[in-house]
Amino acid sequence: MNLVESLQDLLGSEQVLTGELAAPYLTDWRGRFQGQAQAVVRPASAEEVAKVVKLCALHRAPVVPSGGNTSLCGAATPDQSGQAVVISLARMNQVRSIDTDNDTMVVEAGCILQSLQEAARGAGRLFPLSLAAEGSCTIGGNLATNAGGTQVLRYGNARELTLGLEVVTAEGEIWHGLRGLRKDNTGYDLRDLYIGSEGTLGIITAAAMKLYPLPVAQRTAMLALNTLEDAVAFLSRARAGFGASLTGFEVMEGHVLEGVVKLYPQQRIPFDGPSAKSPWFALLELSDSESAEHAQERFETVLGAAIEDGLITDAAIAENIAQSKAMWHLRESIPLSEAELGKSIKHDVSIPISVIAAFVRTTNAALQASFPGIKHIIFGHLGDGNLHYNVANAPDQTEEDLMNRQYEVYQIVHDSVHAHQGSISAEHGVGQLKRDELPRYKSELELTLMKRIKRALDPDNLMNPGKILQS
Amino acid sequence: MNLVESLQDLLGSEQVLTGELAAPYLTDWRGRFQGQAQAVVRPASAEEVAKVVKLCALHRAPVVPSGGNTSLCGAATPDQSGQAVVISLARMNQVRSIDTDNDTMVVEAGCILQSLQEAARGAGRLFPLSLAAEGSCTIGGNLATNAGGTQVLRYGNARELTLGLEVVTAEGEIWHGLRGLRKDNTGYDLRDLYIGSEGTLGIITAAAMKLYPLPVAQRTAMLALNTLEDAVAFLSRARAGFGASLTGFEVMEGHVLEGVVKLYPQQRIPFDGPSAKSPWFALLELSDSESAEHAQERFETVLGAAIEDGLITDAAIAENIAQSKAMWHLRESIPLSEAELGKSIKHDVSIPISVIAAFVRTTNAALQASFPGIKHIIFGHLGDGNLHYNVANAPDQTEEDLMNRQYEVYQIVHDSVHAHQGSISAEHGVGQLKRDELPRYKSELELTLMKRIKRALDPDNLMNPGKILQS
Repeated sequence: MNLVESLQDLLGSEQVLTGELAAPYLTDWRGRFQGQAQAVVRPASAEEVAKVVKLCALHRAPVVPSGGNTSLCGAATPDQSGQAVVISLARMNQVRSIDTDNDTMVVEAGCILQSLQEAARGAGRLFPLSLAAEGSCTIGGNLATNAGGTQVLRYGNARELTLGLEVVTAEGEIWHGLRGLRKDNTGYDLRDLYIGSEGTLGIITAAAMKLYPLPVAQRTAMLALNTLEDAVAFLSRARAGFGASLTGFEVMEGHVLEGVVKLYPQQRIPFDGPSAKSPWFALLELSDSESAEHAQERFETVLGAAIEDGLITDAAIAENIAQSKAMWHLRESIPLSEAELGKSIKHDVSIPISVIAAFVRTTNAALQASFPGIKHIIFGHLGDGNLHYNVANAPDQTEEDLMNRQYEVYQIVHDSVHAHQGSISAEHGVGQLKRDELPRYKSELELTLMKRIKRALDPDNLMNPGKILQS
Repeated sequence: MNLVESLQDLLGSEQVLTGELAAPYLTDWRGRFQGQAQAVVRPASAEEVAKVVKLCALHRAPVVPSGGNTSLCGAATPDQSGQAVVISLARMNQVRSIDTDNDTMVVEAGCILQSLQEAARGAGRLFPLSLAAEGSCTIGGNLATNAGGTQVLRYGNARELTLGLEVVTAEGEIWHGLRGLRKDNTGYDLRDLYIGSEGTLGIITAAAMKLYPLPVAQRTAMLALNTLEDAVAFLSRARAGFGASLTGFEVMEGHVLEGVVKLYPQQRIPFDGPSAKSPWFALLELSDSESAEHAQERFETVLGAAIEDGLITDAAIAENIAQSKAMWHLRESIPLSEAELGKSIKHDVSIPISVIAAFVRTTNAALQASFPGIKHIIFGHLGDGNLHYNVANAPDQTEEDLMNRQYEVYQIVHDSVHAHQGSISAEHGVGQLKRDELPRYKSELELTLMKRIKRALDPDNLMNPGKILQS
């Protein structure tokens, strides 16, 4: 039997997709990467995943794990060789258990992120991981890329939300590491090694995740600011004044929000007069363990003092859930409006917060020097030092002109990130998109250490080869 | 030149200790482990550490990093062969930088933990890692063992407080990974691999640590409870009602506190009448970003409801800092009082919080069955599921009787931990003390993965050999 026949024998032929049925798994959702595969398989348990991996190892076929196919870096798309087997975890979508005394839940890799938020809420708990793709991304993919999102400031990245893992190794063994413990110092941290390794060391099939109490109330406010420096100065104040109730601190350029409301006239910037034309806006979220009134009072106290001191120029506190939602909707419409306005070059970078304003100034200037009139679309999670620094064509440039020179743009922005001691991938991972940039920004020693670990855990280089590291 | 001469040549002879000067580094502080070494060296920089490691590799001499020598598991004590070189990091004790906008500080491995708390406070920030040995342990040791302590509930273990590392590898290269970023998804998580590896993969020479705002006020309360089950039920309530202001939740058996106040009559349990004889006590700490009055009000609201519902029987809220300190002093006097009352067998275990009460019941019964009349001294960080479950001799047993059978006791307790899906080392690490127990409780697969990583990063097994893994 050849490999595909053996896989059909193992899983049943309806779980082994080829031809047109396999096609959706062979292109990333932004349509930037296109690959080939012998088959796409849909195992239903860790045991089946293990058997698939063993079969593939026997046939020396690379395996590419696939979740919700929302990678922004092509991490789940196979290469062109046609040798790979894509393993979709979509059928492993059970919440295995929820333990409200331990504040943990054990979930399978194929669970859609939003369904986990809902399962936790159903048990009276918060599962705080939250990001734009939550309606279709899976927790397995979130863990493989150590996803971030909007709640990192308070709750951390996917990594910090994870207590234990179940992993199928390159040899097709199952590591039963689903520990629900907040303290466990019995040896090397395998968990965090697999998290963020994008399927190149093993396949995460389930995870024990932390839960939190549901906040009693959430309140949102939008702030108008003159400069990014002011936003940084105010962030320190906000962290001190709100403590851990501060669960969101987003910033966006004024012209970016103006673009949103121009495109979607049913939305509006919640200010009148000059504040509506502010160079920068910030969106704050408080999650309060007491009451909406208490959150309101905290907002008024801390924001009032900041206005008096000139750190912020204006503030609009949402008075109800509808107004809160409208403010978040504005922020979340940025990527959509960007897409409608044309192609742009996206950068997902992080910078130490103390130099983030200098980074923006320097990078804007460097880009203008090479591409006069080029437009920047800057927004992101200031509380985490994470900016989405995107670039659109100058008025005298076509989209194609710009896209043809995208690697020049990447290099200008990423060189500046590097010079400011930042990271060229804050929350999206490396995949194939940024793989060849890593050697420019990481020391040879660090890459060597990574390769030694890769060889130790995947000696035949069959686990998602060509992602993160060059094959 | 032999190795010691080469080391003298490199560092100056006054930084290469032998004979009596080396002796304090060759015994752990509890006097349970005793080793030998060619020399103890005291390099002053990462470059010197790297050169020492290179020299040792050339001579195939094992290296044993040493911080404050407060390991409870013999992790920093060399073996008896006399081949090792102990590398004391004590002279690397500089705070390299504090960045209050980024809320980070870069510190060298030999900094005493308490000095870092003070440095942060001096900059108007909180460095929350806090544990009994903080006056003498070093941050390098804290990171090597992923130390926990009393603030984990809110701020996490040493691991969660770390953003970047500088590490000398087994080849004597320096990995400059001192990134101060909260989001960085560019490859394998080397940071978390070195953290908790007890010097067996490389030597941490510096770290970029997270800082937090200083709380505006802290308030402490002591609770009287009937059962550990009630404490678990109340913990959920406390997490919801206090949110992230809840920075401490300790429990202790009533008879343990009675032992403390009997021994130190200047201390007292802050209750009168039957509450003072309660079977269990809990110590809570709130860190408030508003005011002491607000913390007081929160305590009154949440504790009042819990008393009404019968979850706790009594509560004493500290009215000032002196009363707060007295409550913490009671808790912190437990290990001291234990030591004064005689030898005991200590277990540092973690258990999923939902089964922690069942664990205590089952384990108490199992120990009584084998050692009738044996005494348990139970206290710990309930919020993290971390108990210090200690055992002292029965009235008809001598200390020696018990200590002669200590491995039987370990096995009963640790088998019960394992049966309850817990960890036999929550926050103290493995070292040499628990190394030979790991194979009983960890799967062969997990140990194999750990050994493959060890071989990949330390192929000649020269980095603190015989710790965590058998040589």
